[in-house]
Formats: sequence, structure tokens, C-alpha cells
Amino acid sequence: MLKLIPKRIPIRVGHKYIAIVNEKTAKELDMRCADRILLKIGRKRLTAILDITEKKELRDNQIGLFAETWDKLKIKKGDIIRVNVAPKPESDVYIKEKLLGKRLGAEKIDTIIRDIVADDLSDIEMTYFVSGCFTRGLSDEETANLTKAIVKHGERLNFKDRIVMDKHCIGGVPGNRTTMLVVPIITALGYRMPKTSSRAITSPAGTADTMEVLANVVNNAKKLKQIADKVGGFITWGGGVDLAAADDKLIRVRYPLKLDPQGMLLASIMAKKYSVSSNNVIIDIPIGKQGKLKTMKEAMELKKRFLAIAKKLRMKMKVVVTNADQPIGNGIGPVLECLDVIKVLKNEEDAPLDLKEKAIMLCTELLHLTGKYKSKKSAEKLVREVLDSGKAYKQFNRIIKAQGKKKMKKVGEFKINVTAEKTGKITSIKNKLIATISRAAGAPSNPGAGVYVHKKLGEKVRKGDKLFTVYTENKIRIKYVKKLPLNKAYHINNNKK
Amino acid sequence: MLKLIPKRIPIRVGHKYIAIVNEKTAKELDMRCADRILLKIGRKRLTAILDITEKKELRDNQIGLFAETWDKLKIKKGDIIRVNVAPKPESDVYIKEKLLGKRLGAEKIDTIIRDIVADDLSDIEMTYFVSGCFTRGLSDEETANLTKAIVKHGERLNFKDRIVMDKHCIGGVPGNRTTMLVVPIITALGYRMPKTSSRAITSPAGTADTMEVLANVVNNAKKLKQIADKVGGFITWGGGVDLAAADDKLIRVRYPLKLDPQGMLLASIMAKKYSVSSNNVIIDIPIGKQGKLKTMKEAMELKKRFLAIAKKLRMKMKVVVTNADQPIGNGIGPVLECLDVIKVLKNEEDAPLDLKEKAIMLCTELLHLTGKYKSKKSAEKLVREVLDSGKAYKQFNRIIKAQGKKKMKKVGEFKINVTAEKTGKITSIKNKLIATISRAAGAPSNPGAGVYVHKKLGEKVRKGDKLFTVYTENKIRIKYVKKLPLNKAYHINNNKK
Repeated sequence: MLKLIPKRIPIRVGHKYIAIVNEKTAKELDMRCADRILLKIGRKRLTAILDITEKKELRDNQIGLFAETWDKLKIKKGDIIRVNVAPKPESDVYIKEKLLGKRLGAEKIDTIIRDIVADDLSDIEMTYFVSGCFTRGLSDEETANLTKAIVKHGERLNFKDRIVMDKHCIGGVPGNRTTMLVVPIITALGYRMPKTSSRAITSPAGTADTMEVLANVVNNAKKLKQIADKVGGFITWGGGVDLAAADDKLIRVRYPLKLDPQGMLLASIMAKKYSVSSNNVIIDIPIGKQGKLKTMKEAMELKKRFLAIAKKLRMKMKVVVTNADQPIGNGIGPVLECLDVIKVLKNEEDAPLDLKEKAIMLCTELLHLTGKYKSKKSAEKLVREVLDSGKAYKQFNRIIKAQGKKKMKKVGEFKINVTAEKTGKITSIKNKLIATISRAAGAPSNPGAGVYVHKKLGEKVRKGDKLFTVYTENKIRIKYVKKLPLNKAYHINNNKK
Repeated sequence: MLKLIPKRIPIRVGHKYIAIVNEKTAKELDMRCADRILLKIGRKRLTAILDITEKKELRDNQIGLFAETWDKLKIKKGDIIRVNVAPKPESDVYIKEKLLGKRLGAEKIDTIIRDIVADDLSDIEMTYFVSGCFTRGLSDEETANLTKAIVKHGERLNFKDRIVMDKHCIGGVPGNRTTMLVVPIITALGYRMPKTSSRAITSPAGTADTMEVLANVVNNAKKLKQIADKVGGFITWGGGVDLAAADDKLIRVRYPLKLDPQGMLLASIMAKKYSVSSNNVIIDIPIGKQGKLKTMKEAMELKKRFLAIAKKLRMKMKVVVTNADQPIGNGIGPVLECLDVIKVLKNEEDAPLDLKEKAIMLCTELLHLTGKYKSKKSAEKLVREVLDSGKAYKQFNRIIKAQGKKKMKKVGEFKINVTAEKTGKITSIKNKLIATISRAAGAPSNPGAGVYVHKKLGEKVRKGDKLFTVYTENKIRIKYVKKLPLNKAYHINNNKK
């Protein structure tokens, strides 16, 4: 045991409790980098992760505490910290087991997730856990247990409804903003649908980014419960509420290598449903050359895993495989996507039909999943009614109002039109390039930026016809956009045969 | 691009270049935690790893720089930093390939090691590399290439001798201080033997800890070259010189889970030989119930790998399998081990015979490996001569003098004698418990602490005979030692049959 004088290091390092001593003091404590150090002041105790500084920023009798650690211990002037070696967390043993290829039982997974949420594991330890899950895989059983652990160690929204609806799309299709149609339709029909969505990471917009054009999407759990109790549902940013705290922490260490261990991805999706009490869930898996998954075989394997895990979580689930060959709707980017959604809800003439029909299909499947409708046809009829009558639009506005309405931003004022270089038929649209162009234009951080697609697959065009328009909020972005191979986004076949 | 005002964060975080901005600035840069940020002041440039602080320790126009980053950029008052996104290192791609189970070619391994040594990889990235090597394994080819890369990106001692000798023991046997005999014997015979050793991590003493009782073991490469040129060799701490800089950095991330990917371990050993130009190397693999390896089969597998990698590195190598059933020599702990070594070198009557004979065997094998001796017998004769004549002892003192002689510390003044509880024959000695007792007594940080073993396997004892004595430098350690099951270290069989 040593008695050390705390020195505040005026910076936060992201929720971790880190203490730092110089090399000599570390030697005296017989401790190494990343060891656990137990800090005591009176009856206060905190376990921190030790870092060691090489030079003399710290005297031998000092211990540096980053801001989180300092605040957590509520250090007062004159405080002396008694420090001791703390044992390594049990989680280390289980993480090593996973790296060795063993299956982890529910308790071990729960311990790891508990320690992650309590900020008891270092980046190095969390990275080993992700590596183990990535290289050794997670069984359905492990994935279900991981889901439960993530939910247990996070906030939860409890609804007493027998039916709580949810949907999820694995992504990869620009413009595919069905959630913003499904939630108002389903809740207009009287069902509960508390939907959390993500922001874009590499795409031009996540549902949370798009919804944020119209409404506040950062709400705490209590407020979200109130909204859903009042208007039936919401469309909010999942990261704004600690429904899956462990997940957010794991994503941080997955990010540098963009590692997506399948079991972890599935647990992450399922936890978001499970934590808001969802029990009737539809999963949308788009496939195609341009999609995240290319083949029906891949889709079927993923579907099987989704259904197996849902069963273990006692969740009713329907998995639909859809087409990822081109954008859905016409707008790509937050504001442009909002305009599409509103056109559909308002039954405007130029509303994008593909977006509308896909949303209707998803709603129909969801209703049918409940077992309350004698046929899909009768369910579909209800869905069309609620949409055609304007009830869904009215409901959409109620949700926006409940979340906190925002003044809608405009589409960017600068634009580039990209036209057909020849006459012919459109045979492919490169989703990834369209997404890259939209991001270069500024989406999603500039909400008015993005791409508006005028033509879709199979359409005939004449040389000079507008294919798509790129919008930006500022002039410099136009320069960035022009560096991209804009004319490669569409392929036109003028073969007369 | 943003222009930010640097703020010094007065702490070093271990050789990494880290810059930190607040959440708002990160969003404006469209950057996330662990992204690379390019820092420019005039013509100075540095790529740092980005960290993001949550609260207002930093203003929107500030960038926090930890001490290493600040110093590296030589920041002056009034400097403004232009910051930009920097690309991810190529290494990330290769590390992911390893995690996916691919073999890495020489160039990819070289790139990863180069980036590690340049402090361009974060802990998270290095941890993924270790995980990949651990879960997917490294082939002999990969291990040899890893060895070469570690050596290339570290310091090197170049000797022109046709023969440069070295030895290595995989460890696990308390007291086994043969290096301190082999180096003086071999160098007394006129060969070059530049030996780097490690400090204890979990054992009561590493060779570097023991040698440090008598001589300085922290020397830079230039000084080491001078010593070896002058007296033929040295026994120094490998960590005191950057011969395998990458290795030290990897060990830091391996430590929390105590992960020992075999290929990495082998590369680490081989790099230490390769970097000092060794080309005739003997490897000692002790096996037995008490050892790191339990069976001859395990030893043979490891031997095969050692020889395969040595061949790729064009190194002559002999692997000997020895016995790990009990401590070698009588002393365990730095000072006690030194006393054993000196007794052997001075040919004293109570010199531990097992230590002496093992050292003679290793030296004989080393000489024979060179191909310069017609038989092992003739080689052994030379070894015994140099030891018996006192030439080896004289040489030992020359080496000590060249490294910088120290005043030798005494054995701890407090002691506990552990005696036989019954009459009979000693049938087992628990190495791990003996090591634990020695560490509890204070070894290696208290050099005078440790265990002196009076009896060895097969010896007959009478009830009350001294089995071993524990020495400590201070009274409180006696208390710690007494908590251990001291009487379980020896097993005595009194079966009369």
C-alpha cells in the first residue's frame, strides 16, 4: 500500500477510470501498465486502470487522475489516496476462453457485459472480446445470451401491450426510409411501435438523421416512454438513450478495423428490439449486386440465424428479402428523404411509388405476423386505407409534435445535374457510388445535401436526359463532388438487339 | 480543414501521439474516436490518433495534445495547428486479413511492425494484431518474417565474427541461472557471446535481475558493442536497449490477458538472437510436471518449430530437452542465485552440482554445434578445463567490470526454516509454490529475498531436517510468507515398501 497525492489531469478520456503514476512508483507497487489499481479515500473506493508515465510529469508521491476518476472520487483539497493492487476482473478469464474457441455460457457473457458497462474493462480487453467473437464466432445461444446481457445492463422501456411492433433493415440501400412510413401507419392502426434508429456511419443518412430534419430525436428513456404512451410510438435516435450501453462501447473498439462479428451485430440489433419490449418484429434483408449481401443463399443463412435467436428471445419475427439493386425513393440525404416520405404520406402525385409499396408490404407483413388478420389481403387493405385516408400523415404529425417539432431545413441551393451520355435503357445504378456522391455533397452533416434520382432501373432515356441531381449547401462541396466519376453511377445499354 | 489552438495536457501516455478535441469539433471534422488526424504547423506534420472528450475541458477551437505530441511538434507560443483527416494506416487492412485467417507475406508483416515501432498503431489495433496471431496462428514462414521485421525496425549489434554464440531457456525452473556460467565459459574460450536477458515477470528472478546484483545491466547499444568487443560478451537486460522495440510494445498489449501467441513468442526469442548477430544458438526446453511444458511430445513440437525458423534465418541451432522437476541450484532469488553461480565459478566445495553440470552440458553442446570439435567429449574437456582452472571466474569478473561493477547486496536478514514433517524420501518439489514463496518473500524487487533449497529430489530426510529456508529483507514480508502453505512445497514419501 502506498499513500499518494492526487493530481488532476484536466481531460476526460471517455468514461474510463484511469490513474497514472511514474515508473518508480509503479515499480514500488510492483504494477504494470493496464493493471487494476484500487484507490481509497476514507470509505470511498474506486478501481481504476493503471497507466505509467515515463518522465517526471508526476513526482514519486503523486498519482495522476483523469477528470472522470477525479470527479467520481469527489476529491477535496488535501485528500491523500491510499492505493493498492486490485485483482484482475473475472471477465479476463472468460475473454481468453473465447479467444481459445470455447463457448461462453450465459453467466460468463453477462459478467463481461456488466464489466464493460461499468467501465471496468480497458480498450485492450474489450478489443480481445471483439476479436474472440469475430474469429471464433458466436452460437445462436451465445448471441441470445449476449442480447439479454446487453439489455439487462442498459435502460429498458417496459410496455404492457400484448403486441409491440418493430422493424429493422440491415441497410445498404440509399434512400430506403421506410421506417418513417411504417411507424405512423402501424401506430395509426392502434399498435405500439417504439422505434429506435441509428445515425449514418458511412452512409449518406440514417433514419435518425432524416427524422431529425423534422423532429427532435434525442430523448431520454422516461420521455420516450411518455411519447409512446401518448401517441403510440416514436422514431428516435437509439444512441441518445442508454438502451444498449454495452453495444455503444463495443462499437467504439470495433470501429478502427470496422470489424462486424456477425453474432455481435445480431445481438446489437436484437437488443435494441428487446430493450423496448418489442415482440412482433419484421426484418428487411435487401440483397443484390449493390447490397450488403449479394445472394439469396447469404440472405437465407442470415434469416435462419435471426429466426433462431428470436425464438430464444420469444419474439415473433418475420424476415423478408428485398431488392438492393437501386435506391428506394428518389431522395438521398436527410432533407431529400424527408420530402419523399411526406409526399407518400400526403398521397401526392409524384410520391415515389417504390418507397410507398415497400412500406405497405412491410406493414402488411407486420400486421399478418400478429395472427390477428385472416389474410395478408385483409391486412393490406387496412394499411392502404390508413395511408390513403391521410390518417397516417396525421399520425406522423402527432409523433413529430410529441418528439418536438423542428423547422424543416431546405434542400441545398447549389446543384449539379448529371445527364445521360447516350440514349438507351438503364441497366444498373451503383448504390455505393451514389452514396459516396451524397456524402461528398455533405450528407448527412449538411442535411440539405444529397442526391435526387430522376431515373430508375429499366427506364429508357435519351442522351441529355437528367439522370440525377446533386445538391450541396455550400459552393466548395460542388468542387469535391466534381472530382468523383459522376457519369459512372448509371449504366445505360444502347444495344439495339 | 480546421485551425485549432493547441492546449498542452501535461502527461505522457506511453509513446503514442494522441490529440483530443471536443465532441462538437469532432463532428465538424466528421471524425470519430481512434481516427487518424493530421496535424500541421508550417511545414511540420504529425499524424496522431484522435480521442474525443465529452465535456467542456476543451473549447471548440482547441485541440488537446498529450506531452509526447506537444514535444514532437515543438509547439511555440501562438502556434495554430491546421488539422485534417489522415488516412488509416495500411496495417489495418493486413491485421484484418490475419483476423480472417489469411497468411501474411513478408511485406505486410514488415509494414505492421514498422507502424508499431513508429507508434502509428493504437492499442486497439495492436490488440487486434495479437488476437489474429493468437487465434489463427503464425506459420514458420510468418514467424521468420516477423523476426526479421522486429530486428529490422530495432537497433542491431553487428559482429563480424564467423561464430557468435547465444543461448535461451524457455523458463519455468526456479534458480536455473546457467547463463551466468555459460557466458563466461564460452567467452573465456575466445568466442563472442552477446547475451541479452529478461527481468522476471511472474518468476522470482530473471537473469537480468540476478546479474544486476553484481553489475550494471542497463546499457545502450553502442556501449554493449564496446563491451563485447573488449571482453567477448556481456549479460545484460534486453529491455535496456531497443534491440526489439516492436516486441516490447506488443508485450504491453499481450499483458492484460497474458496472451502468448506461440509464433509471437518464438519471433520474440529469435529476434533477440538475430539482432545481436548470433548464429550458433542453443535452446533449453525444460519439461516435467512442474515445467511450462509437461510432455516430451510438446517439447518435440516446439523443437521442430524452433529448428524450422532457425533454418529460415540461417542460424545454427541445437535444442536440448532438460528436466523441470525441481529447482536447479540451491538459491532462488537474485542474491541467492548469484552466490550459487560464484560458488560454481570458484569451484567451491558446496557449489550446486546440478547447476554446474547443466552449464557444462550447454557449453559442450554449443561448442559442438560450431562443427569445430571432433567430438562432444573433446569439447567437454575444454569446458571443464576453463571452469576448473578458474579462467571462467576471471572472465566473469572481467565482464562484470566492463559492464560496471556493483557492490553486492546481502541475503535478507530475516528467515524462516521449513523442516520435514516426517521421515522419508523426497518424491516431489513444487516449483510454482517455491516461486510463489520467493516472490512473497520479496524477490526480485528485494534482491536479498528468496528461498534456499537444502534438499533435492530423491534425498532421504528425517523428521525435523531443514528442507528450505526463506529469506526476507524486512519483517513484514515474513508475515506474508507465513500465509502460504509452506509445508506443501515438498512431498515426502515414508512408505516403507
